[in-house]
Amino acid sequence: MGRVRVHNMSVSVDGFAAAADQSVDHPIGVGGERLHSWIFETKFGRGMIGAEGGTEGADNDLLIAGDTGVGATVMGRNMFGPVRGAWPDDQWRGWWGEDPPYHHPVFVLTHHPRAPLQMSGGTTFHFVTDGAEAALARAQDAAGGRDVRIGGGAAVVRQFLQARLIDDVHVAIVPVVLGRGESLFGGLDLPALGYEVIAHSAPADVMHVRLTLRATTS
Amino acid sequence: MGRVRVHNMSVSVDGFAAAADQSVDHPIGVGGERLHSWIFETKFGRGMIGAEGGTEGADNDLLIAGDTGVGATVMGRNMFGPVRGAWPDDQWRGWWGEDPPYHHPVFVLTHHPRAPLQMSGGTTFHFVTDGAEAALARAQDAAGGRDVRIGGGAAVVRQFLQARLIDDVHVAIVPVVLGRGESLFGGLDLPALGYEVIAHSAPADVMHVRLTLRATTS
Repeated sequence: MGRVRVHNMSVSVDGFAAAADQSVDHPIGVGGERLHSWIFETKFGRGMIGAEGGTEGADNDLLIAGDTGVGATVMGRNMFGPVRGAWPDDQWRGWWGEDPPYHHPVFVLTHHPRAPLQMSGGTTFHFVTDGAEAALARAQDAAGGRDVRIGGGAAVVRQFLQARLIDDVHVAIVPVVLGRGESLFGGLDLPALGYEVIAHSAPADVMHVRLTLRATTS
Repeated sequence: MGRVRVHNMSVSVDGFAAAADQSVDHPIGVGGERLHSWIFETKFGRGMIGAEGGTEGADNDLLIAGDTGVGATVMGRNMFGPVRGAWPDDQWRGWWGEDPPYHHPVFVLTHHPRAPLQMSGGTTFHFVTDGAEAALARAQDAAGGRDVRIGGGAAVVRQFLQARLIDDVHVAIVPVVLGRGESLFGGLDLPALGYEVIAHSAPADVMHVRLTLRATTS
């Protein structure tokens, strides 16, 4: 069985992984795009939006590492899109266009059933209505021994951390304050759950911190 | 009038400026000493405890900057010591021995009156029972045009931030998770209060972030 990993979760100095007031115009909340600007400085990030150039240093390496060895992704419905409640139709097909940057099966947690969406480039969105553990089991099955990435957003990562279902977490602390939004770690007692910091680096505009779940816990 | 400044507030990745279960044996809570270990890597930090050696780079420079131009300090009672409630006697004289590293007047916020304590080296502890703004006014008067430093702990810094009484904040994000303790920024909407990040650097084991209070606010 592969590992369950979180990568490149950008978090503000005051602890938010997304700003408040998310909408179709503000997928990461109003002002939240500042959390991700470091990504678009890199070659990997620029490639995600079809642009040339970008840096190739440590930030870029960590973005590539977040993709490497991953066979399936689990994400929350709010990361998939701004539609709330029952799906009115099949119009919303994700934020990423017809060729999303996953290239593997993606399991979207939702309370509302919907038929799978097959996109270009190997990505299929599956909508899972029977909870986080069921989504993870399906993702692990689909990954065929490769790792599963928990894509986000913050609420989904928190839910999986609380259940000790994540093995490795990489957060990037971004030097902004947001004031309101989705807290990543608030209310979670990470050491009690078994998580500890095993590495950090700060090559550029963010501080990368890696946590892991200890094999044995208190 | 000088500025009101906070320096070298160490905060964990999960947002705590002190761990839980503070006591005379654990002034920063159980495990909280990891927040401050970077300080004792520096020449300045080692000098604080009478030791030789230590690094002289950017971390050391920021520690020196936190002392420079400061004419008075305000701190909370829990930063002064572990005694709670009415002072039983005059035995507790602070964590720092007979020659504390302040060398100027220090105003300790408390609900319980106590006569001033004159220490060696220019430090006098004054006990202020009429609130944060009164303590700041007395500190500004004592500082004679120099700056006032808000020393901590977290609760006092939060109280002064909420009242927009602090001009400059320097936090050092330390790559540890504590799980429980004293949150530094939780529940504070820093941008709404007028605070924004103006600089950051990560020369070594911590990420330094500087915030300032904008001259005009929304």
